[in-house]
Amino acid sequence: MRRHIAAVSAATLLGLACATGVAEARPASLYAPSAVVLTVTQGEDETTVVRASTLSCAPTAQGTHPDPEAACAALAATAGTLDALLAAPDSNRACPMHYDPVTVTADGVWQGRRISWKHTFSNTCAMSVTFNGNPVFAF
Amino acid sequence: MRRHIAAVSAATLLGLACATGVAEARPASLYAPSAVVLTVTQGEDETTVVRASTLSCAPTAQGTHPDPEAACAALAATAGTLDALLAAPDSNRACPMHYDPVTVTADGVWQGRRISWKHTFSNTCAMSVTFNGNPVFAF
Repeated sequence: MRRHIAAVSAATLLGLACATGVAEARPASLYAPSAVVLTVTQGEDETTVVRASTLSCAPTAQGTHPDPEAACAALAATAGTLDALLAAPDSNRACPMHYDPVTVTADGVWQGRRISWKHTFSNTCAMSVTFNGNPVFAF
Repeated sequence: MRRHIAAVSAATLLGLACATGVAEARPASLYAPSAVVLTVTQGEDETTVVRASTLSCAPTAQGTHPDPEAACAALAATAGTLDALLAAPDSNRACPMHYDPVTVTADGVWQGRRISWKHTFSNTCAMSVTFNGNPVFAF
């Protein structure tokens, strides 16, 4: 049993050494990176981006987003499943039913895992009612 | 001829007015957004991101990238075609041929157009030689 533990430890150390070597002696971060680009695009396809914000949430909240702290907290609340942003619409507001679509996207990394999310709303009113004050796309 | 110019101007103004209206009276930016998330990942797939940086290049260079100005200038030199980053390897350096792949990605927006680029190098040496001092992935 003791030998087994020793073998595992050696393998772990070797693994660490190799990982460090691959990263060219650059010290590994103590946190998994969380960095996204958020965009708002007119239309259904995503060819012409109207607005874009960067957001980095580790080790501190920063970016061109106007409120990085709030946006990082709201993203953290989704645990990387951004459909959660659609789950709490304002039930007291109504929207005209005209179709003038707006697409929002989030691409990048959340806690070390790549994310690529997009959602198309029928118009900006539907977007505003659905996000219901959520700060992630408030830029 | 004068009438033609007047018609074009009216159409332009109408277009501007509509664009502003759709954006919910938010003033349109004077610049096309340029914002990317850059990642470095161990392996061929992109599931576990080792390092990530955000970079916003308009109106000013900023982000968690250690040298946003240099990285934005280098990205501007590619004109959004990031394969150009691979075009000037250091011909004076050799690399061991072992396979320990590293994947780099760039996702986001460049001058209003969405970009999604990735490239896998056989090892970190190959990456370093290929980028040849280019600052975009130097983080």
